[in-house]
Amino acid sequence: MKKLRVGVIGAGRIGRVHAENLAYRVRGATVVAVADVVPESAEKLAAELQVPRWYGDPAPIFADAEVDAVAICSSTDTHAKFIEDAAVAGKHIFCEKPIALNLARIDRALAAVEKAGVKLQVGFNRRFDPSFQRLRKVVANGEIGTPHILRITSRDPAPPPIDYVKVSGGIFLDMTIHDFDMARFMMGDEVVEVYVAGGVMVDDRIGQAGDIDTAVTTLRFRGGAIGVIDNSRKAVYGYDQTVEVFGSAGVANVTNKTPDNVVRCDCTGVHSSLPLYFFVERYAEAYVVEMQEFVNAVLNGTEPPVSGLDGRVPVVMAYAAKKSYDEHRPVRLSEIEA
Amino acid sequence: MKKLRVGVIGAGRIGRVHAENLAYRVRGATVVAVADVVPESAEKLAAELQVPRWYGDPAPIFADAEVDAVAICSSTDTHAKFIEDAAVAGKHIFCEKPIALNLARIDRALAAVEKAGVKLQVGFNRRFDPSFQRLRKVVANGEIGTPHILRITSRDPAPPPIDYVKVSGGIFLDMTIHDFDMARFMMGDEVVEVYVAGGVMVDDRIGQAGDIDTAVTTLRFRGGAIGVIDNSRKAVYGYDQTVEVFGSAGVANVTNKTPDNVVRCDCTGVHSSLPLYFFVERYAEAYVVEMQEFVNAVLNGTEPPVSGLDGRVPVVMAYAAKKSYDEHRPVRLSEIEA
Amino acid sequence: MKKLRVGVIGAGRIGRVHAENLAYRVRGATVVAVADVVPESAEKLAAELQVPRWYGDPAPIFADAEVDAVAICSSTDTHAKFIEDAAVAGKHIFCEKPIALNLARIDRALAAVEKAGVKLQVGFNRRFDPSFQRLRKVVANGEIGTPHILRITSRDPAPPPIDYVKVSGGIFLDMTIHDFDMARFMMGDEVVEVYVAGGVMVDDRIGQAGDIDTAVTTLRFRGGAIGVIDNSRKAVYGYDQTVEVFGSAGVANVTNKTPDNVVRCDCTGVHSSLPLYFFVERYAEAYVVEMQEFVNAVLNGTEPPVSGLDGRVPVVMAYAAKKSYDEHRPVRLSEIEA
Amino acid sequence: MKKLRVGVIGAGRIGRVHAENLAYRVRGATVVAVADVVPESAEKLAAELQVPRWYGDPAPIFADAEVDAVAICSSTDTHAKFIEDAAVAGKHIFCEKPIALNLARIDRALAAVEKAGVKLQVGFNRRFDPSFQRLRKVVANGEIGTPHILRITSRDPAPPPIDYVKVSGGIFLDMTIHDFDMARFMMGDEVVEVYVAGGVMVDDRIGQAGDIDTAVTTLRFRGGAIGVIDNSRKAVYGYDQTVEVFGSAGVANVTNKTPDNVVRCDCTGVHSSLPLYFFVERYAEAYVVEMQEFVNAVLNGTEPPVSGLDGRVPVVMAYAAKKSYDEHRPVRLSEIEA
Repeated sequence: MKKLRVGVIGAGRIGRVHAENLAYRVRGATVVAVADVVPESAEKLAAELQVPRWYGDPAPIFADAEVDAVAICSSTDTHAKFIEDAAVAGKHIFCEKPIALNLARIDRALAAVEKAGVKLQVGFNRRFDPSFQRLRKVVANGEIGTPHILRITSRDPAPPPIDYVKVSGGIFLDMTIHDFDMARFMMGDEVVEVYVAGGVMVDDRIGQAGDIDTAVTTLRFRGGAIGVIDNSRKAVYGYDQTVEVFGSAGVANVTNKTPDNVVRCDCTGVHSSLPLYFFVERYAEAYVVEMQEFVNAVLNGTEPPVSGLDGRVPVVMAYAAKKSYDEHRPVRLSEIEA
Repeated sequence: MKKLRVGVIGAGRIGRVHAENLAYRVRGATVVAVADVVPESAEKLAAELQVPRWYGDPAPIFADAEVDAVAICSSTDTHAKFIEDAAVAGKHIFCEKPIALNLARIDRALAAVEKAGVKLQVGFNRRFDPSFQRLRKVVANGEIGTPHILRITSRDPAPPPIDYVKVSGGIFLDMTIHDFDMARFMMGDEVVEVYVAGGVMVDDRIGQAGDIDTAVTTLRFRGGAIGVIDNSRKAVYGYDQTVEVFGSAGVANVTNKTPDNVVRCDCTGVHSSLPLYFFVERYAEAYVVEMQEFVNAVLNGTEPPVSGLDGRVPVVMAYAAKKSYDEHRPVRLSEIEA
Repeated sequence: MKKLRVGVIGAGRIGRVHAENLAYRVRGATVVAVADVVPESAEKLAAELQVPRWYGDPAPIFADAEVDAVAICSSTDTHAKFIEDAAVAGKHIFCEKPIALNLARIDRALAAVEKAGVKLQVGFNRRFDPSFQRLRKVVANGEIGTPHILRITSRDPAPPPIDYVKVSGGIFLDMTIHDFDMARFMMGDEVVEVYVAGGVMVDDRIGQAGDIDTAVTTLRFRGGAIGVIDNSRKAVYGYDQTVEVFGSAGVANVTNKTPDNVVRCDCTGVHSSLPLYFFVERYAEAYVVEMQEFVNAVLNGTEPPVSGLDGRVPVVMAYAAKKSYDEHRPVRLSEIEA
Repeated sequence: MKKLRVGVIGAGRIGRVHAENLAYRVRGATVVAVADVVPESAEKLAAELQVPRWYGDPAPIFADAEVDAVAICSSTDTHAKFIEDAAVAGKHIFCEKPIALNLARIDRALAAVEKAGVKLQVGFNRRFDPSFQRLRKVVANGEIGTPHILRITSRDPAPPPIDYVKVSGGIFLDMTIHDFDMARFMMGDEVVEVYVAGGVMVDDRIGQAGDIDTAVTTLRFRGGAIGVIDNSRKAVYGYDQTVEVFGSAGVANVTNKTPDNVVRCDCTGVHSSLPLYFFVERYAEAYVVEMQEFVNAVLNGTEPPVSGLDGRVPVVMAYAAKKSYDEHRPVRLSEIEA
C-alpha cells in the first residue's frame, strides 16, 4: 500500500514530535522533507530520521510533486499563510493550533482550503488522549445521561517566558483555547456565552504585559448545560489536566497521568508520584493518535476528526473570554462575530 | 465536673441527631428536656434517650432554671424568635442554619444575643467534618501556599419534595448556603462578588416553583482568589461533597467518603462503593464534633467556632447569588446590604 | 421491649470499649454492673456510664438475678473459668478471644456452655467491620467465582511491651489468631495445613523471649484454595489490615481505612493520610456491630455469629503454625488434635 | 556516532517487539538482519522495518562481519546453542529468557560467553518497567528501611495453549521464573530456600499435562527476609502484576497500569478500567528501556544490567520450587546444585 508522503514545516519542539511520530509510530506515512527557518534545525532533524530532503524555507515542499501532505508546525503567525500555500499546491494539511489570532485571517485560510478541496486537520491534540477519548465515548453513549455540568481543570506547570507571553495573544488564545476545544468536543455542543473571573496571581510581570495568569471561565452551552474551566499558569506539582462531566445518570472524570504507579508509606504519610510534567510527556500517545487519524483520513478520503471550523470556534471563544474579563460581564459569542 | 444541661427544641430528623449526640457522644453535656410542636415526637425522643422532661412547646424550656443551653432544631421560620426567647432567658444557644431568611430579622436576633451576652453557635456542620477540618489546617498552615482557586462540588442525591422547595427560599438559601459557609471557612477570607450560571435541568416542577436545580457560582474573594461552587439537586450516585484549594505551593482536596473500602474487579472493570448517601451519614462525625465544640465553648467560656456573623454572611451571599441569576450579571455583596 | 441486662467483666481498654458501646450505641441492651480486679477501675467506668453496680470481683454478677448476660473482657487466663461460672449461672456469654491458650481448657469451657444451654459469642471483632462484611458477601455471592487465593496482610503499628510478649502465648496465639479467624470467615472453608516462614526482624528482645515478630503463613484449605497471611509486629505507618480474595471470576479486596480523605500535592509528590493507628480506631464500628449482633442473638433466640467452635479452631491453627515454625515443615491441623 | 548493528534472530511475537524497538525507539542501534525458521516471517518483518537482509537460518548473521550484536528471540530450546554460536563469532548477545531449561546446558553457554569475552544480557524485561525501576530505587535508597517482607502477585489473563504447557517446563520455569528474577532484583539479595503450595484450579487439562496453574511460593532470603509470590494462570480481569516491599521504615508497592484514567459513577457504583491485558501492553515501555540498556552497555563497554548469572539463578529457583511442590516440603537451593 502506498504511504502518505509528508513534509514537515517547522523543526522546533512540536515539529520534532510530529516528525518522529510520522517516521516511526504512524502507520501508512513517511516523512519526505523537513523545513525550518533555521536550516540547521531542519538538517539535524532530517539526519536523525533519515529524511531525504531538508530546507530553510517551505516553498520547495509546496512545489514538490512527491509531497502529498504537510504538517505545519511553524510559529503561529505563519500558519494561515502556509495553509493557503499548501492548499493552492494541492497538499493536504495538518496544522498546529491556532490557525491565526485574527478571525478574518482564519476565514481567508479556510476559504483557500475549501476552494482547493484538500483535507485540513487542526492540532487539538488533547482530543486524542486515550483517557479523553474514552470519556467522550462515555458521554456520547449516554452512560452519564444528559450532561448538566462540565468541569475542566487545566493548569500548566510553569508560565512561559515573558517575551512569549507578550506575543502569545493572551491566556485565552494561548492556553484556554485548548480547553475551549475540549469543552466543545466533550459535550458535543456549542457554547453561546462565557464569563471570566481572573487575575494576576502567579507573576506580576504577566500583568505588566497586559495578560492574566489565573482564570475561571464559566460556559453556557446552547443545550443549557454549564461548564467551568479553571486555569493557572503555574501548578508547582506539574501539569494538571482533568475533566469531569456530570449528568442526569452519573458522573465521569479523567484524572491525571503519572510516570509510575509506585505508592510509598512511611511514618509521615502515603506518597505517590506527581503528574507527568508537561504536554510532551502527558500527551505523547495523543500526538501519535492525532497524526494517525490525519493520515487515515487522507488515505481513506474521510473527513479529518478536527475540522477548520473546530479550529476557528475556540478563537471566537477566546475573544469572548477576553471581552468578558475586560468588561466584567458575561459575553455572548455572537457579540464577537458581529 | 458539672455537665451542661441542654434543652433540645425540635424532635425532627436533625433534632434527633443532635439529641442523641448530646446524650451519648458529647462529653460534658446532658439532655434535660425536649420540645416539639408535635408533642408525641418530643415524648418519643425523650423516652428513647431517657430525658426527664418533654413538651409540645419550647416555652417551659426557656423558663426552666435547670436548663443552661438550648439546641434549636425547629423549622427555619421559628429560629429567630427562639433565639430571642432563649437570649432573654439567658440560655446559651446552638441554632441550626439559617438564622432566618430575612436579614433584618437576623439582625434583630443577633442584637438580642449580644444584649444578653449569651453564646450563640450556628449549625454549619460541614466545618467539623474531619476531612474538611484537616483541609482547612493544610490551607491555614500555608502547605499549599497562597490560595488562588477554590473549587466546591456540592450535589444532593435527590431533590427535596416540591412542597419543601416552594418554602425553602430557593436553592441558594437552602442548599448553596452551606457551600458559601464552606468557602469562607476554607479560605479564611470574605467574598465580595458572586456570579451565577444555572438552570432547571433536574425537574421542571422546580422551575415552576420559581427555583432552579443546577447552579455554578463564581466567587471573588477580597484577597483576589477565585472560587467556584457547582450544585445539583440530583446526583444519582449519592451525596457528592468535595472541596479543592489550589495555591502557589500546591493543591489539596477532600474526596468523598464511602461506607466501605472494598474494591472488586471482574471481567467488566474495577468497581468500588458509592459515596455515603446523604448528610446524616456523610456528616455523622461532624455533627458530634460540632456539638462538642459548642459545649466546650460554653463550659470554658470561649467563643463558639461559628458565630452569629458566620450565620448572617452566607444569607447575604445567597441573596447576591439570587440577584446575579435574575439579572444575569456579577453582583457585589455590598449591593445586598445597601 | 425489655432490654438485655449485661454485666461487664473487666474494665480495661477493651472492657471500656464494650461497656460504652452497650451503654450508648447498641440497641436493646443496658449495662447493669461492672467488675474489675482493680475495684477503682470498675467504679470509675460505672460512674462514667451511670451503671448502678460495680465490684472488684465478678462473682456478684454471676449471682445477680437481674443480669441476663455477661461480657468477659478480663485477662485471657480468666476467660475459661468465667465462661464456666457464667454458664453455670445461666448467663449468656460474650467472651473476648482467645477462650484459653490450652485446648483441653477450651473444651471444658465449651462443654459447660453446651450443658447450660446458654449462648456464647467469641470476640472476633474483625468479622463485623463493614468492609470485611461486604467482602464476605462478595465472596459468598460468587461475585469473584470460586476462590483460589486468599491474601491477608495484618501488621501492627508497634509491638506490645516485652512483658506482655512473654505471657502472650506467642505471635500465633496472640496476633495471627485474628487472621486465622478471618481466613475461615472469608473463605467459608476450613484450613487443613499450615506452613510458616518467619523470624525476628523487629526487636531482638522478642526473640530472646522465645517468640518471633514477623511471619508469613501459608494455609491450605480443605477445598483446595491457598491462603497467605503476612504478619509484622511493627508497621511504622500504622495498622495495616487488608484482605484480598482472588477467584475464577475476579478479585476483591479491602484497603485500609484512613482518618480523613485529604489528598495534598506539592512539588515533592502526592500525599495522603496514614491508616487509622490501631484496632480501637480501625475497628470502632466493628465493635458496635459485634455487640449488637450478640444482643440480637440473645434477644431473638438465634445463634450468635461467632460460635465456641469458631473460638477453638484458630487456637488449633495457632498451635499448628507454631509447630510448623519450630519443625520447619508444613503441619496438618490433625497433628495438633492427635 | 557509530550505531550498534544488530541481527534479530526469531521473528515471532517477542522478536517483532525487539526488532521494532531497535529500529525506531532505541538510540544508537540499527537492525541489519533478521532470521527466522519460517523465512516468510523474517522477510515480512525485514520489509516492514526496512531491514536490508533476512534469512531462514541465523548462520549468516553469525558469519556477518557487519553484525555487532544479536538479539536471540527464537524458541527456548535454541537459546543456548545460538548463544554459543554468537559468542564464538564474537557477537554481543541479548537473549530472551530462559537461557535453557537444563542447568548444565546453561553453564556451557555461559562458559562460551566468558571465553569469548562478549557481553550477554538476559531478557528479564520487568526489571525495566518504570514503576519497578522506581520501586527498586525506593528500596535501595533505604526509603522503607531494611526489607522484611516481599509480596509479588503475578497472574496471567489466560493460560497458554495446552500444547505449549506440555513443553513449557512447567509453571515455575515458564511463568514464575519472571517473579524469581523480580524477587532477586527488588531485594538485592539471594533466595536460599523455597516452599510451594499450589494446585490445579483453572483447567484440568493443565493437571493432566503434569503441571499446576495456581501456586503460592514462599521465599527465604539469605539476609532473613521472607518473600511470597502468588501465581495464577488465569485472572479474568487481566494481567495482575504487583509488587510490595515492606520494611522497618515503611512499605512501598507498585499497582497495576491501566489503559486510561477514566472513573465513572452511576447509581450502581464507581467504575474504572481494568489493567492492561498482557505483557506486550503492560511492559511496552520496559522492552524499550531493556534494549536501550543493552545497546548502551555494548557501546559504552559497561556491564549489562542482567547478567548470565541472573539468567541462571531463577532456573535453579524454579527447580527448587518444582521439587518443593513434588515433595511437599521446603527445599534449599543448594539441594538443586548438588
